[in-house]
Amino acid sequence: MSVNTFGRLLRFTTWGESHGPALGAVVDGCPPGLELDDSWIQPFLDARRPGQSKFTTQRQEPDQVHILSGVFEGRTTGTPISLVIENTDQRSKDYSEVAKAYRPGHADYAYDAKYGFRDYRGGGRSSARETAARVAAGAVARLVIPEVSITAHVVEIGGDAIDRELAAATRLNDSQFARSNPFFCPDPKAVKRWEKLVDEARLAGSSLGAVVECDATGVPAGWGAPLYGKLDADLAAAMMGINAVKGVEIGDGFAAARLTGEGNADPMRPGADGPQFLANHAGGIAGGISTGQPVVVRVAFKPTSSILTPVETIDRAGEATEIRTKGRHDPCVGIRGAPVVEAMMALVLADHKLLHRGQCG
Amino acid sequence: MSVNTFGRLLRFTTWGESHGPALGAVVDGCPPGLELDDSWIQPFLDARRPGQSKFTTQRQEPDQVHILSGVFEGRTTGTPISLVIENTDQRSKDYSEVAKAYRPGHADYAYDAKYGFRDYRGGGRSSARETAARVAAGAVARLVIPEVSITAHVVEIGGDAIDRELAAATRLNDSQFARSNPFFCPDPKAVKRWEKLVDEARLAGSSLGAVVECDATGVPAGWGAPLYGKLDADLAAAMMGINAVKGVEIGDGFAAARLTGEGNADPMRPGADGPQFLANHAGGIAGGISTGQPVVVRVAFKPTSSILTPVETIDRAGEATEIRTKGRHDPCVGIRGAPVVEAMMALVLADHKLLHRGQCG
Amino acid sequence: MSVNTFGRLLRFTTWGESHGPALGAVVDGCPPGLELDDSWIQPFLDARRPGQSKFTTQRQEPDQVHILSGVFEGRTTGTPISLVIENTDQRSKDYSEVAKAYRPGHADYAYDAKYGFRDYRGGGRSSARETAARVAAGAVARLVIPEVSITAHVVEIGGDAIDRELAAATRLNDSQFARSNPFFCPDPKAVKRWEKLVDEARLAGSSLGAVVECDATGVPAGWGAPLYGKLDADLAAAMMGINAVKGVEIGDGFAAARLTGEGNADPMRPGADGPQFLANHAGGIAGGISTGQPVVVRVAFKPTSSILTPVETIDRAGEATEIRTKGRHDPCVGIRGAPVVEAMMALVLADHKLLHRGQCG
Amino acid sequence: MSVNTFGRLLRFTTWGESHGPALGAVVDGCPPGLELDDSWIQPFLDARRPGQSKFTTQRQEPDQVHILSGVFEGRTTGTPISLVIENTDQRSKDYSEVAKAYRPGHADYAYDAKYGFRDYRGGGRSSARETAARVAAGAVARLVIPEVSITAHVVEIGGDAIDRELAAATRLNDSQFARSNPFFCPDPKAVKRWEKLVDEARLAGSSLGAVVECDATGVPAGWGAPLYGKLDADLAAAMMGINAVKGVEIGDGFAAARLTGEGNADPMRPGADGPQFLANHAGGIAGGISTGQPVVVRVAFKPTSSILTPVETIDRAGEATEIRTKGRHDPCVGIRGAPVVEAMMALVLADHKLLHRGQCG
Repeated sequence: MSVNTFGRLLRFTTWGESHGPALGAVVDGCPPGLELDDSWIQPFLDARRPGQSKFTTQRQEPDQVHILSGVFEGRTTGTPISLVIENTDQRSKDYSEVAKAYRPGHADYAYDAKYGFRDYRGGGRSSARETAARVAAGAVARLVIPEVSITAHVVEIGGDAIDRELAAATRLNDSQFARSNPFFCPDPKAVKRWEKLVDEARLAGSSLGAVVECDATGVPAGWGAPLYGKLDADLAAAMMGINAVKGVEIGDGFAAARLTGEGNADPMRPGADGPQFLANHAGGIAGGISTGQPVVVRVAFKPTSSILTPVETIDRAGEATEIRTKGRHDPCVGIRGAPVVEAMMALVLADHKLLHRGQCG
Repeated sequence: MSVNTFGRLLRFTTWGESHGPALGAVVDGCPPGLELDDSWIQPFLDARRPGQSKFTTQRQEPDQVHILSGVFEGRTTGTPISLVIENTDQRSKDYSEVAKAYRPGHADYAYDAKYGFRDYRGGGRSSARETAARVAAGAVARLVIPEVSITAHVVEIGGDAIDRELAAATRLNDSQFARSNPFFCPDPKAVKRWEKLVDEARLAGSSLGAVVECDATGVPAGWGAPLYGKLDADLAAAMMGINAVKGVEIGDGFAAARLTGEGNADPMRPGADGPQFLANHAGGIAGGISTGQPVVVRVAFKPTSSILTPVETIDRAGEATEIRTKGRHDPCVGIRGAPVVEAMMALVLADHKLLHRGQCG
Repeated sequence: MSVNTFGRLLRFTTWGESHGPALGAVVDGCPPGLELDDSWIQPFLDARRPGQSKFTTQRQEPDQVHILSGVFEGRTTGTPISLVIENTDQRSKDYSEVAKAYRPGHADYAYDAKYGFRDYRGGGRSSARETAARVAAGAVARLVIPEVSITAHVVEIGGDAIDRELAAATRLNDSQFARSNPFFCPDPKAVKRWEKLVDEARLAGSSLGAVVECDATGVPAGWGAPLYGKLDADLAAAMMGINAVKGVEIGDGFAAARLTGEGNADPMRPGADGPQFLANHAGGIAGGISTGQPVVVRVAFKPTSSILTPVETIDRAGEATEIRTKGRHDPCVGIRGAPVVEAMMALVLADHKLLHRGQCG
Repeated sequence: MSVNTFGRLLRFTTWGESHGPALGAVVDGCPPGLELDDSWIQPFLDARRPGQSKFTTQRQEPDQVHILSGVFEGRTTGTPISLVIENTDQRSKDYSEVAKAYRPGHADYAYDAKYGFRDYRGGGRSSARETAARVAAGAVARLVIPEVSITAHVVEIGGDAIDRELAAATRLNDSQFARSNPFFCPDPKAVKRWEKLVDEARLAGSSLGAVVECDATGVPAGWGAPLYGKLDADLAAAMMGINAVKGVEIGDGFAAARLTGEGNADPMRPGADGPQFLANHAGGIAGGISTGQPVVVRVAFKPTSSILTPVETIDRAGEATEIRTKGRHDPCVGIRGAPVVEAMMALVLADHKLLHRGQCG
């Protein structure tokens, strides 16, 4: 199976390096007749775009998407949708030192071991820039699941977590708050703290990790499959496949391992519109299949590996050296992970909607 | 793509319910010429088998595996290997009440929503019994990667974690210790505590969660792929696809999100046999590709959902009722998860070894 | 992708050798709720079963199928359906000579070149016996497409073709005629001729090729896909994947290459129930998608390679020798191809029905 | 599985319509380190390009390919190779009448039945223009199999076949002859006849079918797989997936069905460099696996469906009408099929080389 393709019925393939002429995605299996043009996709790319605050990389990319196929007279045709985003701000010269030595925490050494050489410009294929293609594909996927609403928030940076009650209240009062601050953060107090925290890391040439939480409401019961195509297994692959991700939880995740069976139960009651659940420890998925509750995923992003502090490493000849990364980098790559997590959630859910319809009618 | 199949080049498909006549796996894509007979697989099944201590379900299954194809004169032929395990201790009568109402925490309601009805005997396809087929398939996968050594331990039960220093020392002195206690636990003191903990849960009709950690040493640098076929993404799907799993971490996992870039770096030094790493926060994988360090995965198992305490639920007609599960169940399903996690690790690594050889020679 | 699996949404994997203990298929992705038990499948296996006339191999196999999973209380559950058929009449001793030298026309040499050794008992995996597993899987597929009626006939043996007008008339008068003669032949006069022809070949230790034609009526317009998942491309793979097949045609096939555009057009007229076509040169498929006309496929089977006449060959050491095959073999393997072609047609159509429903609702 | 993707380990996905801004292919799984730039691919596209003689469509497209990813400093990196070809000569106005009524023989009606509407500009996705993307992908595949030499010829047009002896002699004397005439024809006398034949069809607004034969020499024994991944099954799917193809044969194909077992045998003798075969009825494939002989495939192209003669049809409202196609079309689409058949042969063989290496080392 193609290692640059994701999905089963709704599938997408991405291509492109951070410093090539362009990158893109081909989305295949999209239902026909959905209204689609560039302007639907662009806002999702804009949300992910770098250079919008001092808390993200200063690389300036317009990230303008072009649809090259699969749409006719404003509607999807059912054939492959080719999405292309040109690279405009590449500055390959920033990466001259990287060509010689392996950056610890980066894929440099592993790539070289695999392929015998590597595209050292900005990490080549393993650049976080690839996620732009996913976000574009995810925008298409959202059209397939209009019944679902997907929101991802950053809930922790550098170990400093949001206040969940405050976040819930804020979300209720101002549903756009999290989208209007540079951290995709639903807690106004955390925003203040994180501004300081991330800025300090940035000025120190250091970096921070983050946790992104994503919920999808409106998913009906019945999407997914019992075992190797479990909805949660596909979500885990989707999220772990994002650059810099090191952990994935569904529902209570690791905290569930500390509960008893009683504490972890999600009791059910009759409700006006089908069953009501009195809790959602399961994160909306049981036995690999959606239960009708919100699907909840939590994703851990490691701190950006590119830091100004010199780190011990070796060069291609195997000699000891040290490296510090001078390019323009995100002090906290997890922040821009929020739109990417949303995109992957949309792609997995849309795929499973079609799979369910295919098998069960 | 088949939702009961896992893998890319080395693939396996499992079939069977806990209360049907048998269950099994078909392993496809295995290299030819490997020595294989039933006796190679059986010990792995024995390690997973229930009923060996009071800490696991009292269901008694010999779990005897039979190879029905793909082996000739003691060697794999390169054609599909069909593995069958008969079910002998089924007692369907235990499940009469389950047929009427949905067990919270189980897949009962989700299955019904998906398929319109369900096999209510022991959870049918979503029974943990399916993992026997994975363990058998995993034993075949180990033949493909003789250079790799895989060990999974239970490192936490009910929130009570092992002492990692003691565990490391014990592992050094007695490499079989963890295999010789009923918890796959490398820390002798934790064994004592867990005996009490799990027994109390069992007697109370309650259940506990657990965390399993698995390391694979001997994986060379270069297995995996940059993005949608990332080694860690495939591991995440593999582990999240195991029954009762709610979280997966690679290397430091969620803890990495609390580190700085400096703290998370794995510096490299020249070594006698290639590069040496001074740390392994990455868990042996960078950019989706193995680095040559041990591959480390951590997996969270929720507490068994079947408990004696009545839980509020609804029946198929949507009416309020409550349910307590009277069958024979594991008080901590995570314990027997250790051999399953090992099997999935073996299957993913063997698959990526073949993929790497296919693409890169 | 697995090389022993066929299909996209409705997929099946076969396993087993002609001289192992059993062979079987796992059918995955079947819709839930379909009525299924052994007795539905058995007649299809019986139609293919050898030893029923002197015109097929005298190997005696009851070919009794057992469903081991995926069915509960007489209905499919939506989970994998495991089908097993035991081998009972194996007589491995017939194949002693085959172990030493390569039989020309068989896969012996190619297998050895690929795998480094081979299961020489009856051709191992490449035995036509494997098609029993396909036929069983095909019987399940038929349940998915009750709107479709599939019939395969042998239309030519040893270059002697049926009279198509006579066949059409016979089919109209006695729809079971073709099923009631040993050749699946719709032309009574050809039956007489073929009895003599095949018997002479059998007595001479020779063999004959055959052409099988299969039509599927009731396929609605719209199944298939424009390019790499074209309905005709999947049919071609399905049919060419049957042992001994060397050619596949859709509709007029090679004859279409001898027509002009005018002669090959299938003009359309308004009809009572949608469009009516005035011809079906296309064989019911245009641009990879069904048109609503009967889907027509023609399949060429080479003569059985096992013959009594000695043929020049080499042995494993590369030395010149000659071989004559003494086992029990079909004088015309294409005859028993008819039920297999039907099965593959059913599997492809059922798969595309689900794919179409998945993408287009 | 994606219906616009072909291949297993070396996979490609195509996208684009004849009248959109561009079309292209993404090739995934290519081994790293192969020398590649636009100039390697361009000659293959040039061979397929229309407008080079009066025997092909007068549409003028430069078909200039651009590599957008997967190549660094002139070598493949092992990551996806994105190939883009701009459409420049689109003239959508030619297709106004097509929007209203279904062209018999085209996919118009089937598309509408499937998707609910269609891109009527030049057939949209089902235009033969899509094959440009395959040819570009095939050029990459050739790099993977430098040991193999692939040649496709047109061997029959409108029922007028080449003289095989003359063709063989010509090929021996002038290996470039077939490439230097507009018909990819190896027989100089047939070239003369076809010039007249095709020109008459063109002037009459009619069209002709053709048969293309392709051989691949240098394929070692051992590529392929026994059953559902048979080398011949994948070739059949590859060829039947080309626009206008209605039949595929391997080796003797349908003629094998008219031979006896003795006549169809390919006897083997010891040779200087491994076994020698005294015939090649099998077309280089036995049991789905290459034998080391030339792989031979024959492909039937129907006559172009677009003709000037009015044909009875219906419009979208189901009313009777008639249609004649006024655009610029190939009088014999099979002619330009030769480079496409070569490309598909290269893609299948390269894929199976990698698969074989993956499984068998």
